[in-house]
Amino acid sequence: MMLKELREEVYEANMDLVKHGLVVFTWGNASGIDRERGVFVIKPSGVDYDDLTPESLVVVDFDGNKVEGELNPSSDTPTHAYLYKVWGDKVGGIVHTHSSWAVSWAQAGRSIPAYGTTHADYFYGEIPCMRGLTAEEIEQAYELNTGVVIAEGFEGLDPVAVPGTLVRNHGPFSWGKDAAQAVYHAVVLEEVAKMATRTEAINPEAGPAPAYLLDKHYMRKHGPNAYYGQK
Amino acid sequence: MMLKELREEVYEANMDLVKHGLVVFTWGNASGIDRERGVFVIKPSGVDYDDLTPESLVVVDFDGNKVEGELNPSSDTPTHAYLYKVWGDKVGGIVHTHSSWAVSWAQAGRSIPAYGTTHADYFYGEIPCMRGLTAEEIEQAYELNTGVVIAEGFEGLDPVAVPGTLVRNHGPFSWGKDAAQAVYHAVVLEEVAKMATRTEAINPEAGPAPAYLLDKHYMRKHGPNAYYGQK
Amino acid sequence: MMLKELREEVYEANMDLVKHGLVVFTWGNASGIDRERGVFVIKPSGVDYDDLTPESLVVVDFDGNKVEGELNPSSDTPTHAYLYKVWGDKVGGIVHTHSSWAVSWAQAGRSIPAYGTTHADYFYGEIPCMRGLTAEEIEQAYELNTGVVIAEGFEGLDPVAVPGTLVRNHGPFSWGKDAAQAVYHAVVLEEVAKMATRTEAINPEAGPAPAYLLDKHYMRKHGPNAYYGQK
Amino acid sequence: MMLKELREEVYEANMDLVKHGLVVFTWGNASGIDRERGVFVIKPSGVDYDDLTPESLVVVDFDGNKVEGELNPSSDTPTHAYLYKVWGDKVGGIVHTHSSWAVSWAQAGRSIPAYGTTHADYFYGEIPCMRGLTAEEIEQAYELNTGVVIAEGFEGLDPVAVPGTLVRNHGPFSWGKDAAQAVYHAVVLEEVAKMATRTEAINPEAGPAPAYLLDKHYMRKHGPNAYYGQK
Repeated sequence: MMLKELREEVYEANMDLVKHGLVVFTWGNASGIDRERGVFVIKPSGVDYDDLTPESLVVVDFDGNKVEGELNPSSDTPTHAYLYKVWGDKVGGIVHTHSSWAVSWAQAGRSIPAYGTTHADYFYGEIPCMRGLTAEEIEQAYELNTGVVIAEGFEGLDPVAVPGTLVRNHGPFSWGKDAAQAVYHAVVLEEVAKMATRTEAINPEAGPAPAYLLDKHYMRKHGPNAYYGQK
Repeated sequence: MMLKELREEVYEANMDLVKHGLVVFTWGNASGIDRERGVFVIKPSGVDYDDLTPESLVVVDFDGNKVEGELNPSSDTPTHAYLYKVWGDKVGGIVHTHSSWAVSWAQAGRSIPAYGTTHADYFYGEIPCMRGLTAEEIEQAYELNTGVVIAEGFEGLDPVAVPGTLVRNHGPFSWGKDAAQAVYHAVVLEEVAKMATRTEAINPEAGPAPAYLLDKHYMRKHGPNAYYGQK
Repeated sequence: MMLKELREEVYEANMDLVKHGLVVFTWGNASGIDRERGVFVIKPSGVDYDDLTPESLVVVDFDGNKVEGELNPSSDTPTHAYLYKVWGDKVGGIVHTHSSWAVSWAQAGRSIPAYGTTHADYFYGEIPCMRGLTAEEIEQAYELNTGVVIAEGFEGLDPVAVPGTLVRNHGPFSWGKDAAQAVYHAVVLEEVAKMATRTEAINPEAGPAPAYLLDKHYMRKHGPNAYYGQK
Repeated sequence: MMLKELREEVYEANMDLVKHGLVVFTWGNASGIDRERGVFVIKPSGVDYDDLTPESLVVVDFDGNKVEGELNPSSDTPTHAYLYKVWGDKVGGIVHTHSSWAVSWAQAGRSIPAYGTTHADYFYGEIPCMRGLTAEEIEQAYELNTGVVIAEGFEGLDPVAVPGTLVRNHGPFSWGKDAAQAVYHAVVLEEVAKMATRTEAINPEAGPAPAYLLDKHYMRKHGPNAYYGQK
């Protein structure tokens, strides 16, 4: 069986979605790539997290073709594949969930404003809500076109600096350098979505934090002179 | 003691209501049928979940008469019985809870709009809130007439495609092919009720998702060409 | 040491407040009476629940005088004592907490409308919010006058049918035939307060459930022909 | 290794932040001082709570210079240091978190009104939201100036009577006589922020509790004639 280590990593990422309370039943999936071989490992479709094992994960190429695995890959596989394909080195792991606060923003059709430093520490600017897919896009290739719409919505944006999005009327996708970081960003996105909802309840006139504060927080973690942590 | 396997299934379904956080104290019940024998197994009334056993469940026929069991069946038994009777093969398990978000919609007297794909994956269209019972209906046969009002509210609807409802000023009922699926739909209903409340808080102008998106999600799980999962 | 059995019961009631998530730190207390001896057992003031034992509870008479115990009784003792004194046989246990949803209604200064059957199963009519204490009442005998204000607010109400209240800008008190039932009603009050808040968010025009539905639910559990449960 | 006992205390305080649900990932830190030696012990930057040990904590002086420890101290260290320096004997422990309700008020840019006794038991008057830092303050010395802005905002306030604050668009800081009490106040602040949000949802016209009630509650716990607890 190929990609033993990557399988283990992606398995852990999937289980962490449950641990962080982002997933009800089977409503979520995480994947991670082996860019050299041009494949990624993803959760099988509709399998209970309790029954998941590293060996039951599915290996798929960037056109969504199954390379290894007995089970069907997640129905969202074409979305993952497309983003890995178009974003090249920028993304090594992708996560999709139906986490409650993020879905609520997606259903509301609004991008999440950058109200504070919790947001700015990980997302540079608002977390954008994508346009809805058209009837034709859905009919022709729903999951693939979900990826197309995300890639289109990120023209002019850097997916490294904005590691997540809301798919209109559906829910959040997030990503990172690997599956573990994609999970991390999924947790941040949910937390930030919750805080933004409450911020607006407390003060309907609240506006985004000043740009210089957002810059400072993003840069102290991610800029060339980052000084957060132990590096 | 009859129906050993069904008792076990219905016992598990009742305990899963607690596990999924849908039940406070004894405020919930699950039942499942043996259609061949024309009976169903249901939780006894007011018994603590900690004290519940498969053997303490009660067997009842579709007119609500006790067939086996030492304890009184749930006070909601006539509602279950009536729905099993009128809906025939369409329903094999029923659940009633006082889960918080669903009750809040029932108390608000509103049907839950289909705001997104989490909803559409399991409920085809809005989750309807029934009309309130009249004083006469309550006085004459409260629990039976709760079933009558639900059946009336579902004229023109398919209970398989819309596997749950809100009883006005009371709370949710859900159902499925068996008790386990009825529990599953109770969890979905609660989750969707929560997300819908937040969706409206985030954007009071939010409307339901487009019909073609709702169709797509329902059909990819339930249509003749369903491709979600491993079947 | 006197009242071994009652101490055990009241100890369990106090610990159940924690188990049901109604208490942060030491912010709650439960008491239960021995009416024959004219005393009650109550939690000591400011003691951690982890350190609580049946033996550390304090025995107090209905004028609030300590009868047995090494520690100071809860600072809310005069409130408990006064209600036991004026309500005679109607009340055998009292609970006070700072549970979040109930406190929010108390701070909002509103009585909780009877929006549905979860409420009506235990509270006959709205859960009343008391008037605030005057500066003089607070200065002279704050905790005693809290009891006086509750008793005054319940003139014309039956504390058995309405087993709880909100003290303005402070929080909930509930009661029952014993300490365990007072805890049960504290859980119901918190749950109902939560649902009522959400009901109004979902539909600001929502009104209370019709009187005949509220009557039916209260009576099927508490009337002379009650048929809920196993009695 | 110096300050064994203090390291143990500050370690426990940091772990209690997790236990009380105030912290996601590494988003929080607690510190405690040894005033005699003019140093304090603080969490290292970006270290997982699972990997934290008393020995991995960092010792820093009141100008923010590391005195002992292999790891970098929390990036918020200059804020802690400045407050210890300017507030002298008044503060022996400081906590910073991104707890959800408090952050939401900070993002909303509002001070938390004293709506009731839960608030008044620990905070004398509203919990003030500080002004935002200017672009210059952020550029020159962000974390130090966060301390400067807090100290400035507390001119005319006693940090002992108001043991916490909201930093605009960022989140809560709290303090106390030691690290454990700073954690306690962080929990209170989060709980009070939650209740205040709900209070305003239930009654948008709700005003603060009357001054004489707030005085009474603060004084019965903290005044010269305090009678809460066992002292």
